Amino acid sequence: MARVVVNVMPKAEILDPQGQAVLRALGRIGVEGVTDVRQGKRFEIEVDDSVSDAELKRMAETLLTNTVIEDFEVVR
Amino acid sequence: MARVVVNVMPKAEILDPQGQAVLRALGRIGVEGVTDVRQGKRFEIEVDDSVSDAELKRMAETLLTNTVIEDFEVVR
Repeated sequence: MARVVVNVMPKAEILDPQGQAVLRALGRIGVEGVTDVRQGKRFEIEVDDSVSDAELKRMAETLLTNTVIEDFEVVR
Repeated sequence: MARVVVNVMPKAEILDPQGQAVLRALGRIGVEGVTDVRQGKRFEIEVDDSVSDAELKRMAETLLTNTVIEDFEVVR
């Protein structure tokens, strides 16, 4: 049994309205010096040791990521 | 200039319908051996070195996390 993390982020060339909204809100709470915020998804996945890297990649590509606009990274 | 990551996950006792939906969909793509999926958020933040840990914590608590149902972790 192991914990695997899959990080899914908007591709660099894709606008990220959620991240931009956070960036604009920072002034309201008096935080300066933040130059960019990007918002993505984090999946924490509990897997048996029998689950292969190829299966994790298929899961990330098929169920977790919209590969047109997002990139993913599997951290085992 | 540095990259900071803030991970926001649903608290352990909170139901996570998005993660459960992923778990149920795994059968469809023929992946076995996954026992749990939790979905949260990942923020990638570019900050000047002048931004303190306390400011990052305030930002995470105030803007990024619903602390009633979510926990956060700042990775500097």
